[in-house]
Amino acid sequence: MSYEVKSLNEECGVFGIWGHTEASKVTYFGLHALQHRGQEGAGIVSNDEGILKGYRNLGLLTDVFSSSETLTNLSGRAAIGHVRYATSGTGEVNNIQPFLFKFFDGDFALAHNGNLINAKTLRHEVESEGGIFHSNSDTEILMHLIRRSEKETFKEKLKEALTQVKGGFAYLLLTADGMYAALDPNAFRPLAIGQMKSGAYVVASETCALDTVGAHFLRDVLPGELIVINDDGMKIETYTEETQYSICAMEYIYFARPDSNIKGVNVHSARKNMGKKLAEEHPVVADMVIGVPNSSLSAASGFAEESGIPYEMGLVKNQYVARTFIQPTQELREEGVRMKLSAVRGVVKDKRIILVDDSIVRGTTCRRIVKLLKDAGAKEVHVRISAPPLKYPCFYGIDIQTKKELIAATLSNEEIREQIEATSLEFLSEEGLIQSIGLNLDAPYSGLCMAYFNGDYPTELYDYQQNLSN
Amino acid sequence: MSYEVKSLNEECGVFGIWGHTEASKVTYFGLHALQHRGQEGAGIVSNDEGILKGYRNLGLLTDVFSSSETLTNLSGRAAIGHVRYATSGTGEVNNIQPFLFKFFDGDFALAHNGNLINAKTLRHEVESEGGIFHSNSDTEILMHLIRRSEKETFKEKLKEALTQVKGGFAYLLLTADGMYAALDPNAFRPLAIGQMKSGAYVVASETCALDTVGAHFLRDVLPGELIVINDDGMKIETYTEETQYSICAMEYIYFARPDSNIKGVNVHSARKNMGKKLAEEHPVVADMVIGVPNSSLSAASGFAEESGIPYEMGLVKNQYVARTFIQPTQELREEGVRMKLSAVRGVVKDKRIILVDDSIVRGTTCRRIVKLLKDAGAKEVHVRISAPPLKYPCFYGIDIQTKKELIAATLSNEEIREQIEATSLEFLSEEGLIQSIGLNLDAPYSGLCMAYFNGDYPTELYDYQQNLSN
Amino acid sequence: MSYEVKSLNEECGVFGIWGHTEASKVTYFGLHALQHRGQEGAGIVSNDEGILKGYRNLGLLTDVFSSSETLTNLSGRAAIGHVRYATSGTGEVNNIQPFLFKFFDGDFALAHNGNLINAKTLRHEVESEGGIFHSNSDTEILMHLIRRSEKETFKEKLKEALTQVKGGFAYLLLTADGMYAALDPNAFRPLAIGQMKSGAYVVASETCALDTVGAHFLRDVLPGELIVINDDGMKIETYTEETQYSICAMEYIYFARPDSNIKGVNVHSARKNMGKKLAEEHPVVADMVIGVPNSSLSAASGFAEESGIPYEMGLVKNQYVARTFIQPTQELREEGVRMKLSAVRGVVKDKRIILVDDSIVRGTTCRRIVKLLKDAGAKEVHVRISAPPLKYPCFYGIDIQTKKELIAATLSNEEIREQIEATSLEFLSEEGLIQSIGLNLDAPYSGLCMAYFNGDYPTELYDYQQNLSN
Amino acid sequence: MSYEVKSLNEECGVFGIWGHTEASKVTYFGLHALQHRGQEGAGIVSNDEGILKGYRNLGLLTDVFSSSETLTNLSGRAAIGHVRYATSGTGEVNNIQPFLFKFFDGDFALAHNGNLINAKTLRHEVESEGGIFHSNSDTEILMHLIRRSEKETFKEKLKEALTQVKGGFAYLLLTADGMYAALDPNAFRPLAIGQMKSGAYVVASETCALDTVGAHFLRDVLPGELIVINDDGMKIETYTEETQYSICAMEYIYFARPDSNIKGVNVHSARKNMGKKLAEEHPVVADMVIGVPNSSLSAASGFAEESGIPYEMGLVKNQYVARTFIQPTQELREEGVRMKLSAVRGVVKDKRIILVDDSIVRGTTCRRIVKLLKDAGAKEVHVRISAPPLKYPCFYGIDIQTKKELIAATLSNEEIREQIEATSLEFLSEEGLIQSIGLNLDAPYSGLCMAYFNGDYPTELYDYQQNLSN
Repeated sequence: MSYEVKSLNEECGVFGIWGHTEASKVTYFGLHALQHRGQEGAGIVSNDEGILKGYRNLGLLTDVFSSSETLTNLSGRAAIGHVRYATSGTGEVNNIQPFLFKFFDGDFALAHNGNLINAKTLRHEVESEGGIFHSNSDTEILMHLIRRSEKETFKEKLKEALTQVKGGFAYLLLTADGMYAALDPNAFRPLAIGQMKSGAYVVASETCALDTVGAHFLRDVLPGELIVINDDGMKIETYTEETQYSICAMEYIYFARPDSNIKGVNVHSARKNMGKKLAEEHPVVADMVIGVPNSSLSAASGFAEESGIPYEMGLVKNQYVARTFIQPTQELREEGVRMKLSAVRGVVKDKRIILVDDSIVRGTTCRRIVKLLKDAGAKEVHVRISAPPLKYPCFYGIDIQTKKELIAATLSNEEIREQIEATSLEFLSEEGLIQSIGLNLDAPYSGLCMAYFNGDYPTELYDYQQNLSN
Repeated sequence: MSYEVKSLNEECGVFGIWGHTEASKVTYFGLHALQHRGQEGAGIVSNDEGILKGYRNLGLLTDVFSSSETLTNLSGRAAIGHVRYATSGTGEVNNIQPFLFKFFDGDFALAHNGNLINAKTLRHEVESEGGIFHSNSDTEILMHLIRRSEKETFKEKLKEALTQVKGGFAYLLLTADGMYAALDPNAFRPLAIGQMKSGAYVVASETCALDTVGAHFLRDVLPGELIVINDDGMKIETYTEETQYSICAMEYIYFARPDSNIKGVNVHSARKNMGKKLAEEHPVVADMVIGVPNSSLSAASGFAEESGIPYEMGLVKNQYVARTFIQPTQELREEGVRMKLSAVRGVVKDKRIILVDDSIVRGTTCRRIVKLLKDAGAKEVHVRISAPPLKYPCFYGIDIQTKKELIAATLSNEEIREQIEATSLEFLSEEGLIQSIGLNLDAPYSGLCMAYFNGDYPTELYDYQQNLSN
Repeated sequence: MSYEVKSLNEECGVFGIWGHTEASKVTYFGLHALQHRGQEGAGIVSNDEGILKGYRNLGLLTDVFSSSETLTNLSGRAAIGHVRYATSGTGEVNNIQPFLFKFFDGDFALAHNGNLINAKTLRHEVESEGGIFHSNSDTEILMHLIRRSEKETFKEKLKEALTQVKGGFAYLLLTADGMYAALDPNAFRPLAIGQMKSGAYVVASETCALDTVGAHFLRDVLPGELIVINDDGMKIETYTEETQYSICAMEYIYFARPDSNIKGVNVHSARKNMGKKLAEEHPVVADMVIGVPNSSLSAASGFAEESGIPYEMGLVKNQYVARTFIQPTQELREEGVRMKLSAVRGVVKDKRIILVDDSIVRGTTCRRIVKLLKDAGAKEVHVRISAPPLKYPCFYGIDIQTKKELIAATLSNEEIREQIEATSLEFLSEEGLIQSIGLNLDAPYSGLCMAYFNGDYPTELYDYQQNLSN
Repeated sequence: MSYEVKSLNEECGVFGIWGHTEASKVTYFGLHALQHRGQEGAGIVSNDEGILKGYRNLGLLTDVFSSSETLTNLSGRAAIGHVRYATSGTGEVNNIQPFLFKFFDGDFALAHNGNLINAKTLRHEVESEGGIFHSNSDTEILMHLIRRSEKETFKEKLKEALTQVKGGFAYLLLTADGMYAALDPNAFRPLAIGQMKSGAYVVASETCALDTVGAHFLRDVLPGELIVINDDGMKIETYTEETQYSICAMEYIYFARPDSNIKGVNVHSARKNMGKKLAEEHPVVADMVIGVPNSSLSAASGFAEESGIPYEMGLVKNQYVARTFIQPTQELREEGVRMKLSAVRGVVKDKRIILVDDSIVRGTTCRRIVKLLKDAGAKEVHVRISAPPLKYPCFYGIDIQTKKELIAATLSNEEIREQIEATSLEFLSEEGLIQSIGLNLDAPYSGLCMAYFNGDYPTELYDYQQNLSN
């Protein structure tokens, strides 16, 4: 949840609703609960009596929809929306979703969370046959495949297209007649269905968005499923039988909001368990446990509870962190000017500290926090990471695409400890992580994708095969 | 710290620096650490070889100074800055501080945190004699008094003016020759002095701003003091001997950042002590302790530690709360659409909960949170407030100006409990609060102002005498 | 040139340059000279060593490129640009040109002035075969036809595509290797080639843009030509031999800037001739000649010169007319509140006036101006229009698409005079118009398109055949 | 009217209305007609049942009041407004008028057109007695003088203050009870009174604003008058008898809109007369007469009419000149890239041209235009200036404050001609100017201020005495 501190980023969030007089407004609130999944841009497309109308722009949701008029214009009883994560600074509104397509034979909108691993190949094929793409994103490919399909109905075309795209994806589509939700065969990305008191169906990347709009949870979308929602109600279909659960472990560890449940497991509770298990696996004598705000607070309180060592607020995060922040010069940084995170000198001075964090990517942030605590007088800083070391890139929707970015890919535990200048450093074991989450699905690693920890990718890698060697 | 949830508001924050080549940039970072004290507007005035230059505008600091050029233009080796709280929606840039005055005989800038209680009377007097005010704020009055003084030197004029203004104030002034910091005779508002590695002196409303710019704490400004900082160093003078400590208890309870120290007491620790003391005074059998984010988390963890009941994250606050948020319609609210705060259903379902909050003003927010938890399945919700009931208005710089706004001014404990629909409701005692903070100064209530709890105002009330009866 | 007063609108302006180190900056200045041809949006795509980079947005050119950084980012030695006219209020950045396409086999950019008359049919065909369009504009169709062509080279594909699109068009294309300019077989739209002192080639909708960037005029693009400009210089090719000059007469009458030459004829001089001819054809005894600012000033001065009646400034146009102007309420309008145009009472009072305008579309504007003059005391207002009556829609790039919008399509001269409440009303004859322009090309009407006056369309109408009956 | 081309600038425009239900909206339209008098900022203060409410900001009127809501908030039956000219780039909203003062004993608003010549002295006096100014502008001084006056009534205080300020001024004041308009004893600045059909009184800097709001002209405000308008109607009073007409000649020559009348003389007609007289005084054999757009078109048409030489549009001004225009680099300028003004090559090529302009300040603009025409092929360029040479600074409200800025202050006619590279150069004589305007008031120069031509200042110069020697 603390996108400023980490260099890990989720790819997106989606939300859709069918059958509500204020569909686009509900979508706005639903997307707001998913804002942590993407801050580059946001958009909503509504279905007003079969005509689709959309608005999208760069910026946070509340900036994109700063005028209620914009929302009011998106009239109709159904809508889908999207929040997008910024893969690079050069944001273009062209890439902001949902994409809205106006064909002579109808309007279609499309939103996507995840990452395709054969997108480049597919795009090359379509372009070679005269197709024209207008965005850099993977998402558009699905619509090309649908339009090129020779099947009869839209649903059949869609199912065919879904078997052609590979990787991690949660799709939402809106047409004149219905809303469609589809999940990849490994269920890498979360996607949940709920229902509002009024009967309207909602679909969202995380259950926290269902709670926010007052919808009760119906079920998770299962791998390989295509959910069709229209005025006749909800129908559950499958587009493939070749499925195997590989839910992204990082959703539990870092990305999802603590109040969300994924496949029945509450994220806060999973994190607290990770902290407890970590305390079991790597105990240490200390005066207090501190979590890195905000994502590691659950794990830290679990560590504290298990170890009996007091949990303290030794780090304070400035809640007014903005997108356009003027950076201190090098001179000022050397004088100690810092932003975002402050150590609480009155709390940590002369103390032995257990610092709980949820991951180490490059190690620079962790090193900075250790130094912060030491500068504030901490005697010892024992770093405890509530997940195994990140050693391999992810191609299913998280922005860690080369090994070079991962300190644990090349350095040993002791070498990392030295670099971050911690008194000690320990990671949660893979087994400990699996137990803490406790999915117990009938699949490897109880149904989790653990590839970033152990390189065991649950699918072929297609266009990304080469990235493994970087 | 959570300005969206409470209806309590601090009046402002000030920051100043003398003797640094990047004075305005350091001020920017210092003010950023004080942003929780005011979100309506911000400004900085710098002293470039005796010429004062200023910029101020409505909005958060990062919006006001969104271009680094604006800061670069504020060149010079000294600067003062201000963040302002919005007393009303009709914000005018005229009221944003620091105020910059350009007289034929020199430039002066002025920033102010607090509230004067004889401002109306003084303004009437000055206007009757031909003086012209340009803002609605109390702040300008001091400059009029200075200019009208018949004393010889600026410092003597300033001292005379300081004896004329009554109430709570922490002033920062900048002239061609020096920076001046003055605190009211009761030290209602906090004000601390620090020094950077380079030797530059800094003055700030809270010590967290000193930490943020890498300055070490020198001392608190004492009641009745006038600190003069110029190229000869720092000189401590007094403008009155009639002083008595009455530090605003609400700074410890709610306003100040947890990493700040006020008169040597760390705010997080004080809050944790309040939680512990509250657990001692009003124990209850329950399954978990939950704090209202973000300001009550310290007290909640103290309650948990003392009671041995686990501390859980049962409420999640959406960190993307914006200033311009489209509100749900009444219909949507009835369907359960909510923003900002979510209950974590997976955590609180079927549980007996101790909900720790730091204050109840009107009761509406608390009632909403209790309902949120119950809707998420909580069996019992025992509300514990880590401060005594707010019964009287404050006139020294906090925005509670009539009794009508205070539920505890008219209702009994049991009546409030009924209204907020809690299973039980208890407040920390006055004695408990005083002990938790532990100031032990030689003054009533160990040096705290407790007037909002017991009506014992440490000064005459001047223009506000009549407000007591509202 | 006075887009606020007329309801006639040009479709766009294009500008391109090859071989200049500041290509995008020159394009900016060239587009500025073409701003009268489109105010909805603007864009530029540059070619930096084969990589195309673009920026476009809604608004006037100076708003779109308000920061010089944006231009600096569009580095490279070639660029094309576009200003777009607003066909409707609901402007979308998606429709702003140049369009930039990034294919696996290269980057392409496309800008277009004109209107295709078989776009709907072509789009339907492409979509039926799986093609996806992303804008509402006709422009995109050309790129689809190019990509679907089975010819070998890009140039051959482009030529094939150019034979498939019908109507009025002036295209500019930019690729890694070259810039391409193509004109429709009737030369409805103007397009001229020039060369800068440095040797760089420029192509622009009007010669005024060549003058603005200091380029000397080389030649007009001829109907059916495809100009190829690359590092080897300029090559002139043709994609069809079936051509016939039908230059849009309204370019001379109203749209083009007076300092432009089209096919060798200066626009101001042509207009002055129209005024002279009009004075010959329809003389009247009066005290002064007044032109409607700004587009009819040339014709009015010609009328004055020919008739010997003094030319006066009897109407003043407020030069600060903005896009977002608050309109007077009906009550205020009835009290006489008016904007934009004022009659000069001191000049027109008690005078017999000849009012020269260049066209009457709905008649409402003309009626308003006559009233304005009468309210200011004019005794007689003789309206003289420096063109024949507009009776038929245009489908080649001017926004008059149904007869219903044209008062002269249904009313007689006398009926119009009554409606606009003029003392007398006369139009220039078709023959007079042709002589005034004096093109003398070997084609009907000396090479002009006169269809809006006489319904004699120089091409088949394809998708628009039905519009003739509306 | 062409603020981009000249370096001459008017100081401001004022508009006021009493007795209209849409007072602020009428003020908006009135100010729009005065926009040529000031483009830096704009503001309106309305009187709603005795409570004054204001809004002002930097930018053009249509930008400042871009939302009709802002106007709607300025409710009430009276209003005054102001457009301000930018004396420097560092515009501050503090200086934008009307100024709104809120005293314990009432609200007052103040707007000002002109320049005081003893402002510095008065300000020094007031500050020495403890007064505080908040803007850099002269305007505020009047309110200080009013508030310090010991007279009984507001009107008496105002009259006393008006005798203390010296120089050129047209003031508008608004109080709970009435609107006050005052003109300086020389009537340097124009100020006119009109009445709307509904009976509401309006006061404006120029009569074009009366016409724009449908008001009929009642009378000019006379030198030394104080007009009082309230619910009892209009009352004309005088605050001094020591008056002498010295109407700014530059208002006729350059500043005022051609459709305005000043003291009964139409500005367009005066300019046309200047052109005629210029043709008489300095005839020359040539092929055409060209005026510099837009301000010299009237004079040019007068010259053409008198001389019998055809009037042509040989220069075209780009009407889309923006405030934030990216400038061409030096290299581009050398290649001939130019903006704003274009010569019409097809018209001027090989021709002998008479170029009529209304003034030469530094000579750089004129030189550039001559070069433009020659580059476009003109054989001869005879420059004729429709006013005498500018040799002395102005202190009454025009921004020419030192002799250094004036080429004619130091160079002879022939030297200027050489510098601007004209074939010949002649100026209108002082006598010719006086006759062209034809005021014939009983005062030196028939009632005109001619000081910038001959140094004969009609008042003492107070603070500016020293400027004469620069």
